[in-house]
Amino acid sequence: MSRLSIVVWGENVHEHRNPKVGAIYPEGMHEAIAAGLRASGAGLEVSTATLQQPEHGLTTARLAATDVLVWWGHMAHGEVAEAIVDRVQARVLEGMGLIVLHSGHYSKIFKRLMGTTCSLTWREADERERLWVCNPGHPIAQGIDRCFELPAEEMYGEPFGIPAPDEQVFISWFEGGEVFRSGCCWHRGNGRIFYFRPGHETYPTYHDANVRRVIANAVRWAAPQGARWVDSCPNAKEPREKIGR
Amino acid sequence: MSRLSIVVWGENVHEHRNPKVGAIYPEGMHEAIAAGLRASGAGLEVSTATLQQPEHGLTTARLAATDVLVWWGHMAHGEVAEAIVDRVQARVLEGMGLIVLHSGHYSKIFKRLMGTTCSLTWREADERERLWVCNPGHPIAQGIDRCFELPAEEMYGEPFGIPAPDEQVFISWFEGGEVFRSGCCWHRGNGRIFYFRPGHETYPTYHDANVRRVIANAVRWAAPQGARWVDSCPNAKEPREKIGR
Amino acid sequence: MSRLSIVVWGENVHEHRNPKVGAIYPEGMHEAIAAGLRASGAGLEVSTATLQQPEHGLTTARLAATDVLVWWGHMAHGEVAEAIVDRVQARVLEGMGLIVLHSGHYSKIFKRLMGTTCSLTWREADERERLWVCNPGHPIAQGIDRCFELPAEEMYGEPFGIPAPDEQVFISWFEGGEVFRSGCCWHRGNGRIFYFRPGHETYPTYHDANVRRVIANAVRWAAPQGARWVDSCPNAKEPREKIGR
Amino acid sequence: MSRLSIVVWGENVHEHRNPKVGAIYPEGMHEAIAAGLRASGAGLEVSTATLQQPEHGLTTARLAATDVLVWWGHMAHGEVAEAIVDRVQARVLEGMGLIVLHSGHYSKIFKRLMGTTCSLTWREADERERLWVCNPGHPIAQGIDRCFELPAEEMYGEPFGIPAPDEQVFISWFEGGEVFRSGCCWHRGNGRIFYFRPGHETYPTYHDANVRRVIANAVRWAAPQGARWVDSCPNAKEPREKIGR
Repeated sequence: MSRLSIVVWGENVHEHRNPKVGAIYPEGMHEAIAAGLRASGAGLEVSTATLQQPEHGLTTARLAATDVLVWWGHMAHGEVAEAIVDRVQARVLEGMGLIVLHSGHYSKIFKRLMGTTCSLTWREADERERLWVCNPGHPIAQGIDRCFELPAEEMYGEPFGIPAPDEQVFISWFEGGEVFRSGCCWHRGNGRIFYFRPGHETYPTYHDANVRRVIANAVRWAAPQGARWVDSCPNAKEPREKIGR
Repeated sequence: MSRLSIVVWGENVHEHRNPKVGAIYPEGMHEAIAAGLRASGAGLEVSTATLQQPEHGLTTARLAATDVLVWWGHMAHGEVAEAIVDRVQARVLEGMGLIVLHSGHYSKIFKRLMGTTCSLTWREADERERLWVCNPGHPIAQGIDRCFELPAEEMYGEPFGIPAPDEQVFISWFEGGEVFRSGCCWHRGNGRIFYFRPGHETYPTYHDANVRRVIANAVRWAAPQGARWVDSCPNAKEPREKIGR
Repeated sequence: MSRLSIVVWGENVHEHRNPKVGAIYPEGMHEAIAAGLRASGAGLEVSTATLQQPEHGLTTARLAATDVLVWWGHMAHGEVAEAIVDRVQARVLEGMGLIVLHSGHYSKIFKRLMGTTCSLTWREADERERLWVCNPGHPIAQGIDRCFELPAEEMYGEPFGIPAPDEQVFISWFEGGEVFRSGCCWHRGNGRIFYFRPGHETYPTYHDANVRRVIANAVRWAAPQGARWVDSCPNAKEPREKIGR
Repeated sequence: MSRLSIVVWGENVHEHRNPKVGAIYPEGMHEAIAAGLRASGAGLEVSTATLQQPEHGLTTARLAATDVLVWWGHMAHGEVAEAIVDRVQARVLEGMGLIVLHSGHYSKIFKRLMGTTCSLTWREADERERLWVCNPGHPIAQGIDRCFELPAEEMYGEPFGIPAPDEQVFISWFEGGEVFRSGCCWHRGNGRIFYFRPGHETYPTYHDANVRRVIANAVRWAAPQGARWVDSCPNAKEPREKIGR
């Protein structure tokens, strides 16, 4: 099997404005996520792209060669060009996998693919998060124990404004008393989509071994399965059966 | 129970450009659909709206008072203002029902809510369509026999680029040899969505008793079920449990 | 609209063997659940049935006249006759609603309808449960705040061995650190099924106002929507179209 | 990757009673299906099992070593021992893939896993069947054109009494005027299930190249993805968090 081509897209703004974030992720959050993927075993060709690059680093040619796109964004969702969102959406429906992380719940691309508000409740209070596995046999949960903990994270709580997930992989428990559907799968067109909750910028979440394991599992799960179907509303002029008999 | 407020939205263009369509629907397709609903029994307050009206007839106040919106559009999808689509989408997610008819598969509002291409194959060849009931116990299929026929319709064929429906109510057989998922249900946010295939503008489909029955059942099925939840990503500052013990 | 006929089925064993349970539910758990439904407003005709009655109180005639069946069982799942389970399953597929409570997750009827293990993890430790609403617009969540608490309950934890729910209404947070999908909806055949977690026999859970509200909402949500379809694998001898042209 | 272990299970009754069937499948239908899989490329270890063997050829040890089970049955569904059905169901929920063919819609194992009637309408009239691909990007549809035809088959028609499929891969058009959801995917526990309609015993359907291609794709799609989770309702005695503070 040829290697999977993975692009980790980072908004790359907090890292340069907030010294705390810069200290945790000196090369940017996207590079930390990419490093985790590169260390996860054979079979992946991992590169990064950022908001600041021309076309946000997501040219048509590059997307056409990408198997799975990982997305982290937060404060600059509004700066992502609609034309690039159109392009990413089309590639997902054509078969490219998409892994949406944390605050990416409010990214244009995730809201586009879900069709819903994607809203939630939240709190920044350095609280413990425990992620429970809802299906221990799911490919994305392999190598993860019954649950794993993050000592301090931002809280996300229900209601989470999403369509019913095709598969529920994780649900989070928070120290402050909330719960959240923190690992959700959907199929849209030919593409597979996984939302994974952890990863607030002020915590070293993307250095955590379990979080890295989940993301590494997820990109393999989301790899394209079939042909790149070009769907274009064709006129089927010639009927298969005789009409008007 | 108070009456349901139904708005039938019509693009209202073919009727004025194509004499054949004008002859079948002298008051517009939207008025024929509305007439069918008015004749369907008690409990509905039915009005119409069109593309040409200010704000396409869909002001914030009117939508706020609408329980179910029925949508027919085709050649002028591109003329529907994005701001109005935003508004309709928000109301559906808040709980308003939406019935999308025929060529509305390519409307902005349907593509927004599905997140997929919504493409299909098609042919105009005056062919027989037979719609089969997939679940005779479904509210939308009440009063319909095992199947019903339309003597001449446009053909729509698979693949239909939609997310897997929550419920499959009808599948169509076409004389020329194709099949199509012609009655599909989804829940998005608090709203219910039903796509119903028949209704090409050059045929008297919206005068057909079975088609009228299905649409009348569908608006009742899609009526809001609960509170109008306003979802706004609130900060849950005060935790329910003590953090940091 | 005519009144809905509701039958609350209780295993009725713990109440007679454990004085603690008998003290909380002197007339049986089923009677407490029925009392909550009777107090919930107009439109319900509520009766009860128990394991010890002939045919467990679920004769063919009675089931045929039942709109929604509520089920609580635990230690005597194995004593429920297969023939009665067949009968209940057939009625659910025909359109009768089914509300399965707490330890009913391991009842024969629930496992039959789900097709999966329906297993979970558990602990009896008098711990606080907080049930979060995942969709505030859902009919079953009406009248419930963002969440509600039970001061002491048995814990049920993920993984819960169920098919992906059609709709997720509640998720529970437990004091001891677990989470659970505690309110789940499915459609099977013409019937609607709702699983609701709370209700361990040693706690006064079915006297709780919020729990009663949820069950009262659920029976109304699960009421039959359409015709009682009798499905029997018929031979459609006469084709609609000529074969062999 | 190690080879997938595939077992093709055949009822093996029609072949010995009906000379027409025996002529088409001289070594049994199961051997024809197995031959198609063996010819489908590398990576499969294919064997067969039949009703007449001890334990129907499905011992605990053999099932434990099986990755995907293919099932064809019809007139002898009732002769399949409940204990073997229990065993197969447990293995599917543990992760073994299951491909159910044609009249297997009424097998005990399929009805167990679905929880519904699995009924349909039918007709034997040597009619043309055309299977349309609903998602050209699905792994099971790879190598298949927009549709393929079988010149003569038994007809199966809607309503098909199944839970809503997770993914719809094929829908059939029949010459006599019916339609049917002929390729459907579900996830249950850790296992993947695919139902595929064609294959009446009196036609050479399992010698057809497209049918063989679909079954070969399906067994690869249904291969176990993760750990063999043993789920047993464990008591989680030790809470992760302190209770009763």
